[in-house]
Amino acid sequence: MTQRVAVIGAGPSGLAQLRAFQSAARKGASIPEVVCFEKQANWGGLWNYTWRTGTDEHGEPVHGSMYRYLWTNGPKEGLEFADYSFEEHFGRQIASYPPRAVMFDYIEGRVKKAGVRDWIRFSTTVRWVEFNEESDDFTVTVHDLEADHVYKERFDHVIIASGHFSSPNVPEYPGFSQFYGRIVHAHDFRDAREFEGQDVLVVGSSYSAEDVGSQCWKYGAKSVTSCYRSAPMGFNWPDNWEEKPALVRVDGKTAYFRDGTSKHVDSIILCTGYRHHFPFLPDDLRLRTANRLATADLYKGVAYVHNPQLFYLGMQDQWFTFNMFDAQAWYVRDVILGRITMPSDKQALMADVAEREAREEAEDGTKYAILYQGDYVKELIAETDYPSFDVDGACEAFFEWKHHKAEDIMAFRNHSYRSVMTGTIAPPHHTPWKDALDDSMEAYLRN
Amino acid sequence: MTQRVAVIGAGPSGLAQLRAFQSAARKGASIPEVVCFEKQANWGGLWNYTWRTGTDEHGEPVHGSMYRYLWTNGPKEGLEFADYSFEEHFGRQIASYPPRAVMFDYIEGRVKKAGVRDWIRFSTTVRWVEFNEESDDFTVTVHDLEADHVYKERFDHVIIASGHFSSPNVPEYPGFSQFYGRIVHAHDFRDAREFEGQDVLVVGSSYSAEDVGSQCWKYGAKSVTSCYRSAPMGFNWPDNWEEKPALVRVDGKTAYFRDGTSKHVDSIILCTGYRHHFPFLPDDLRLRTANRLATADLYKGVAYVHNPQLFYLGMQDQWFTFNMFDAQAWYVRDVILGRITMPSDKQALMADVAEREAREEAEDGTKYAILYQGDYVKELIAETDYPSFDVDGACEAFFEWKHHKAEDIMAFRNHSYRSVMTGTIAPPHHTPWKDALDDSMEAYLRN
Repeated sequence: MTQRVAVIGAGPSGLAQLRAFQSAARKGASIPEVVCFEKQANWGGLWNYTWRTGTDEHGEPVHGSMYRYLWTNGPKEGLEFADYSFEEHFGRQIASYPPRAVMFDYIEGRVKKAGVRDWIRFSTTVRWVEFNEESDDFTVTVHDLEADHVYKERFDHVIIASGHFSSPNVPEYPGFSQFYGRIVHAHDFRDAREFEGQDVLVVGSSYSAEDVGSQCWKYGAKSVTSCYRSAPMGFNWPDNWEEKPALVRVDGKTAYFRDGTSKHVDSIILCTGYRHHFPFLPDDLRLRTANRLATADLYKGVAYVHNPQLFYLGMQDQWFTFNMFDAQAWYVRDVILGRITMPSDKQALMADVAEREAREEAEDGTKYAILYQGDYVKELIAETDYPSFDVDGACEAFFEWKHHKAEDIMAFRNHSYRSVMTGTIAPPHHTPWKDALDDSMEAYLRN
Repeated sequence: MTQRVAVIGAGPSGLAQLRAFQSAARKGASIPEVVCFEKQANWGGLWNYTWRTGTDEHGEPVHGSMYRYLWTNGPKEGLEFADYSFEEHFGRQIASYPPRAVMFDYIEGRVKKAGVRDWIRFSTTVRWVEFNEESDDFTVTVHDLEADHVYKERFDHVIIASGHFSSPNVPEYPGFSQFYGRIVHAHDFRDAREFEGQDVLVVGSSYSAEDVGSQCWKYGAKSVTSCYRSAPMGFNWPDNWEEKPALVRVDGKTAYFRDGTSKHVDSIILCTGYRHHFPFLPDDLRLRTANRLATADLYKGVAYVHNPQLFYLGMQDQWFTFNMFDAQAWYVRDVILGRITMPSDKQALMADVAEREAREEAEDGTKYAILYQGDYVKELIAETDYPSFDVDGACEAFFEWKHHKAEDIMAFRNHSYRSVMTGTIAPPHHTPWKDALDDSMEAYLRN
């Protein structure tokens, strides 16, 4: 009997899993039947841009949080695939902060080459997953949205790669029901030009707030106000960008802040984060975790301690992304192929989680966090045949990036870094980020 | 063994079902255990306003399509409950086109009086329903969103009252990915003031287009352009409202129409209707129907012909609303109580549907449709103890309303009609609709 593996989601994590299995097969291994269920009509996950917000053409919640004009907010040298470099894909080295279309092309390039598209059932959403104690397998109920047909299949393993930047965390503030303008979460933010000429309030102080606010600034917002609960982002903002303490309430088009000040705002953009959300999972399979480096209940950050036939990819808070997903996917693959044996004792699995949590909590600070996750990537890579790479070098790129942001938040994307995969330094981009209004692949690659 | 009935949704239809059972119990009947599952934290369905769009505080698709400043778009004399008049609720007759808050108060008044709130499990969404052939009942899997707990219960009957104005139908037009402004479906439209000073394009020519466009006009849009595929709405629009033929494409902020003309637009509001959407139902239980008066596959418009232990309320296209839902709920109640016996032969059930379809298709026109649905309401009421009322009189109110709209689309809400429940004529409202910017209950009742 061939084993069957379900992969839920064909974004960077799910595609990493397909590539991992295909890589083993190509080297002669016998692999299980792998079926990937993807809600969207195409692969790429968050990188598959849609203008849609709310629910999609089939009435399902829109997965994408991607907005127009997005360029990576960290250097590509930190996320490069170890088995498929930017140079291999584009035929030459390219600048360090590619816009979405360039990134999508790169992600797609690897899986096109791997030839795994046939493994994916597109426009198919997972409605429900259950574990069958007696037969030691899972029943997965899916909805083929194009055919409007629901069916069930059995799988020996389920790998959840549905992401955790799709389901917005949306707080309510007093007065929101009476606010006169648009209130939108970053998840539904699409085109910064919509806010041209407006006084925009950005609620939050993490990556979304920084980048969504910067987009609005770049594309002509009259002013940007951002507000924080714990600490300001503290960058050297342009003159028409002001940081305020926490939002307290709104009234008409006036926002009031904790320091007693107030400000006229036309629109409110909630950059208040995302939630791990698995509406297709019962209590005994559903991951419940904060967005942190050491996720709850995942042995080695991937195997669900309460049912080790179930895996989760990419559920961590992330400095490392694509190559970390790869490291995870290769590890999960090798567990399923029997190349790696996990402890059979649940206590041992939980001890692994506890150790990771304690180590994460041992020290504060960005540098510590980056190195912590770098160590995690190294740990997983050491156990599989995923191409080894200079993780420390990638960490160095992150440190430089942090430094460049502190130097000039509207200019950090003009810098270049060295690839840890090919050793080459990226060329500078032809136009400073703040002046490059066209985010198409053609424009970016015109060097 | 007590029978168990699940009602999905606590909007006007679901609440009608609770009231129907409570009314029977009050008159001495022995009734089943009724459990109502409501996704939202409060009852009222669409009438429970939220500023939220997209997904809600639990990551579930927002149910509400309600927007601020909405007044009923038909006279309240057409939708009045036969067992609970506006006069009973407000202590006096009120004007004919109440805003949302007034309607919510009225809907709530009846079910508060009935004391059925305890039957409802709020913040609980239905994840999955299956029919068990061997035990002749349903397993309903629900997610208690507050407790984050999934559980299953068995029911002898399931009544689906989840509405069909929650899941938007969202077409794509060429250029939408590159449009510079906001593209929003009426489902996510909230506050017309957001569009103040803008050139707004409304796509569609039915009730949403008419009313959402009118809201934008009332609250200060610079211009409104609406566009139609088959026929213009043809009202006597204000000077800054223009009707165009179908949208063909957009580019930047320019919209192009089928007649070759184009226009600058800042925002696009898609008033392109809704879909029947039941993501919690397998193929053998899932209603698939167009939005029409004779829904597919529903005997007497309520009993699912493929499984007559399953009922649907309010799935029709609607002229009649609240009192039609009541007529349906009383009918379903009496089937479940054994007071009404449905044909046991599936062919007979399907013949009933076919007859309704043929009769609907026999003639075109608004007047025919209104009378058709009036006949349907009469038909159901005749079989139960729901208070009989002058359905023909309600039809007359609809005819007058149509006439008043044709006369002046921005003034039809200034008219008054006679209640078919109490016989009294509504007082005129103190302020013409176009000048009444405050839609609070206090403002409306200040007569």
